[in-house]
Amino acid sequence: MNISFVDNRASHEAVHTIAFHGGVAAPATRSVPEEVAIAFSYGGSSHAVMMATPADLVDFAVGFSLTEGLIDAVSQIEAIEIVQDEMGIDVQIALVEDVEEKLRARRRHMMGPVGCGLCGIESLEQAVRSVRPVLSRDLTVTPHDIARAVASLADQQQLNHKTRAVHGAGFFVPGSGLVALREDVGRHNALDKLCGAVVASGVSGGSGAVTVTSRLSIEMIQKAGFLGSPILIAISAPTAYAIRTAEEAGITMIAVARGEDFEIFTHPHRVVF
Amino acid sequence: MNISFVDNRASHEAVHTIAFHGGVAAPATRSVPEEVAIAFSYGGSSHAVMMATPADLVDFAVGFSLTEGLIDAVSQIEAIEIVQDEMGIDVQIALVEDVEEKLRARRRHMMGPVGCGLCGIESLEQAVRSVRPVLSRDLTVTPHDIARAVASLADQQQLNHKTRAVHGAGFFVPGSGLVALREDVGRHNALDKLCGAVVASGVSGGSGAVTVTSRLSIEMIQKAGFLGSPILIAISAPTAYAIRTAEEAGITMIAVARGEDFEIFTHPHRVVF
Repeated sequence: MNISFVDNRASHEAVHTIAFHGGVAAPATRSVPEEVAIAFSYGGSSHAVMMATPADLVDFAVGFSLTEGLIDAVSQIEAIEIVQDEMGIDVQIALVEDVEEKLRARRRHMMGPVGCGLCGIESLEQAVRSVRPVLSRDLTVTPHDIARAVASLADQQQLNHKTRAVHGAGFFVPGSGLVALREDVGRHNALDKLCGAVVASGVSGGSGAVTVTSRLSIEMIQKAGFLGSPILIAISAPTAYAIRTAEEAGITMIAVARGEDFEIFTHPHRVVF
Repeated sequence: MNISFVDNRASHEAVHTIAFHGGVAAPATRSVPEEVAIAFSYGGSSHAVMMATPADLVDFAVGFSLTEGLIDAVSQIEAIEIVQDEMGIDVQIALVEDVEEKLRARRRHMMGPVGCGLCGIESLEQAVRSVRPVLSRDLTVTPHDIARAVASLADQQQLNHKTRAVHGAGFFVPGSGLVALREDVGRHNALDKLCGAVVASGVSGGSGAVTVTSRLSIEMIQKAGFLGSPILIAISAPTAYAIRTAEEAGITMIAVARGEDFEIFTHPHRVVF
């Protein structure tokens, strides 16, 4: 993969505020996360735009391509060029010829009255796409692993230490600990970046538990499913739809994980007490 | 406006879990929020799909139409029909003829290689659209108002009391209190629903402060701008881009508002100590 990379934007910024604490107003400074419009283009055509933290954009491009079902493997990406302009960052992705042709065909097919396929969310059918069933059956975690995954995520979130305002997604491998961690103002983006980092490093998605600081909505289950991770650990609560989807996909969902405590919502056999 | 409404989905559901608390695993039940794919169609063409809490869908339709810049006034909506199928809910919106024609023209214009206009986010240009400057200059709040807005929001979030997992957006009018409140699993959706409720009730957006439980990203400022509210209060922190946008749009941004404390990020003249 050819990577051409220009990105000198900082992911956070110090701002001046007036702080009202204990009944007294005084000047203060606070570090806040940056947020930039990031466009993903494939073969020269814009595919989607989202607001995100301008860091780890190659991981983001790989992970987004994967979790949107545009590629099956990193090797299908030929080049990534990151172009910055005053409005945001254009991440230009070149896919290998046959995969790019497939995407072009899908676009032509969708260029009808119900949508063009550019945003990936043009119909109810596509929004409720089924999740790839997770095949890995042998990964297990102990209550100690779960507490360690959550604590490691909190410890190692560098941008969150500065801003207290960004989400984190980590990949926890029992016996090895948290082997990858990505942060973003958006929880979906943090997980896409993590998926990209895990896949690009050659680590099997089935070898670890995805651990996130956020709530678990349906999209988070879909993304973990594309990575092939059989265990999902979240600090916050899941939605009912996310629970049903994890149940169907064979994913062990552990949520409301705080300190040593947690709750298991689906497939509890992978938690060994 | 004609409203045809079939919606019998519950916004939350009780699920069985295995709770591990204080070193002991035991069966438990927990109430989790529901999440459903909601499509917005205009004149029979699908425009966008999002995952949302299936409640207050008329407010959602009005607010989304407004904050996406598709309408300028509620009177431009002729009818809303809510159709439920097994994949989700299709909210079908009929606009008055000249507004619907404008939307069709915009779609035809955008039906090029860079996007079709259906998702509303097909280009960097559109993602970074400027925020309508807020004109109302006379609204002010005291530290007591700010604390009351935040406390009222927490008190009155019924779905969050059950699930502890949904966002809330409220409209606080000094002297009257929290006059409207909407909830959703998504913070953008909660704010769209609130905008719809405020506008549909005939209340001026300039008469109150939008108060939200979430962080403030750029989209939250854009939506408050479309409502015309000059004061935005948030429990969590803002992004740097959101701060710059609030500064430009003349919006007073108050964030990290907890208990009696808060910080003012932009246009502090509307806070009277």
